[in-house]
Amino acid sequence: MNKQLILKNRPVGMPTEDTWSLVESAIPEPKEGEVLVQTHYISLDPAMRGWMNDSKSYIPPVALDDVMRAGTIGVVLKSNNHPNFNEGDVLTGWGGVQQYFTTNGEGHFKVDTSLAPMTKYIGALGMPGMTAYFGIQEVGKIKEGEVVLVSGAAGAVGSVVGQIAKIKGCTVVGVAGGPDKCKYVVETLGFDACVDYKNENLYTALKQNCPKGIDVYFDNVGGEILDAALSRIRRHARIVICGAISQYNETSVQGPKNYLSLLVNRATMQGMVVFDYADRYKEAAMQMGMWMMEGKLKTEEDVYEGIENFYETFTRLFSGDKRGKLVLKLIEE
Amino acid sequence: MNKQLILKNRPVGMPTEDTWSLVESAIPEPKEGEVLVQTHYISLDPAMRGWMNDSKSYIPPVALDDVMRAGTIGVVLKSNNHPNFNEGDVLTGWGGVQQYFTTNGEGHFKVDTSLAPMTKYIGALGMPGMTAYFGIQEVGKIKEGEVVLVSGAAGAVGSVVGQIAKIKGCTVVGVAGGPDKCKYVVETLGFDACVDYKNENLYTALKQNCPKGIDVYFDNVGGEILDAALSRIRRHARIVICGAISQYNETSVQGPKNYLSLLVNRATMQGMVVFDYADRYKEAAMQMGMWMMEGKLKTEEDVYEGIENFYETFTRLFSGDKRGKLVLKLIEE
Repeated sequence: MNKQLILKNRPVGMPTEDTWSLVESAIPEPKEGEVLVQTHYISLDPAMRGWMNDSKSYIPPVALDDVMRAGTIGVVLKSNNHPNFNEGDVLTGWGGVQQYFTTNGEGHFKVDTSLAPMTKYIGALGMPGMTAYFGIQEVGKIKEGEVVLVSGAAGAVGSVVGQIAKIKGCTVVGVAGGPDKCKYVVETLGFDACVDYKNENLYTALKQNCPKGIDVYFDNVGGEILDAALSRIRRHARIVICGAISQYNETSVQGPKNYLSLLVNRATMQGMVVFDYADRYKEAAMQMGMWMMEGKLKTEEDVYEGIENFYETFTRLFSGDKRGKLVLKLIEE
Repeated sequence: MNKQLILKNRPVGMPTEDTWSLVESAIPEPKEGEVLVQTHYISLDPAMRGWMNDSKSYIPPVALDDVMRAGTIGVVLKSNNHPNFNEGDVLTGWGGVQQYFTTNGEGHFKVDTSLAPMTKYIGALGMPGMTAYFGIQEVGKIKEGEVVLVSGAAGAVGSVVGQIAKIKGCTVVGVAGGPDKCKYVVETLGFDACVDYKNENLYTALKQNCPKGIDVYFDNVGGEILDAALSRIRRHARIVICGAISQYNETSVQGPKNYLSLLVNRATMQGMVVFDYADRYKEAAMQMGMWMMEGKLKTEEDVYEGIENFYETFTRLFSGDKRGKLVLKLIEE
């Protein structure tokens, strides 16, 4: 049987267990030209919350009664004359929160698990890593010697952003929640400093840790941290708007009240969506893989198990009770 | 005697009459290398409100007990061996709200009043015009065929922004307060449409007037209009943050709650300060003068009289009870 997680209700605010429903059906048969994939892991990303809202965005919302959208990695169990994919191939793509699915292959890519374990392909070598790679370089336009601030610094995107900025010769300060994460960010990931937003005054801590101000702020969180960062930006600063996890479950978004700092400092706030860089994913993954092998880029996955535990795992995105890339293992061994 | 307007108190919220004090003193004598200037007109600009706050900005605040800062145009009455300026020269610069002042000439420029009347040099050929010229072209990066939205469309900056965008082949929609201003913006200035924010629902009106969305929004006002514009931007839109007149007298700034539209639309919000383009003012003034002579650029000054009426005139910036460039005539005839 195939277990699938269906979107039942559009949440207002924080999703609840009733938002989704777990259903069972027969494992589907691939049609001519299709493959049947067994999903091993799904990626849990803050962006999923946005896909559940019935509003215009960079991709259509998940329809009610459809399988919940998610990035996946899995193995081809059967190919019904698919031109490129064969039994045993490992595919990453948009499989959704289900144990098995069929696809004509559109939006799925074959990866080589002899180079990196499966979970890396939905982490640092997948969407979060690509977001970090293009966001900090193409939108943030970091230059050697600049001061870079990164929120969600212990997260899947932020941890990679900061390490790339270090590789490129920047001074890098993270923002994370709690002493354990901050310790990890500095001692394991090699950031120059990390502000604990749960226990420190943001304005004081940023003043101490970025005495010359901030050239690039990579924002994953929005809210108070974005405002604090705006208060410390330097002339011609760039703010990369990658996400706003603090706001996704709010019914009214908190706009950055310090946005006029953009005027005073001739600064830029720019939004990004990783899909725009799809034709360069391969280049980025090769570079990131190289850095990982050289020990310059450390990445971690926080793996939970069982499609039944989707809701509990999903809430960790927002409670912050996870480190690195949040992953749910669907395959039962 | 010389009448001067002194900043006495830092206002919280909207300035009052007690914010300034009018004092009289002897007309100063120019020292060696200085000139004595009689101010004919002062420029009233929304930015003046920001200069009164004791906070870090793009220029230092006006000090308490100092003459209130203002852009001016006036005539040299006496030159005490100034190397460049002679009696009768017309100078524009930062003379402040006073009838006479002495200067070594720093920050003052000689203008030719046979080409344009004095008031144009503090309007379309001065700071507001330069702001429009560089803001919409260098920061807004308008391209032919794009849809441009301009707030404060009947004002000194907005009116020029929209006309330049028309000259460059854009579709231009203004936002202004009241039917008279909207009529002026469309019928006299030649915008394609104008939304009356005092009498129309902004979201509905923008949907009607910008059915394809907005490529460039030139923001002079902030607040609700910025949020409405954000809700209609197209992919890769640019938002020029030039000012936020709706917020200058608020004790807490309203941040744009729709800022995540920047993410969805891969859009940019960028601040600007006109002083950064000082080395190109001459080029801009020549081009603007040309457009004015060709009848492509219409500009208007709303002139009030008497330094005693500074406060009453200043409040017109915020009540909106003025059209085009707000000017106070100081010279008594």
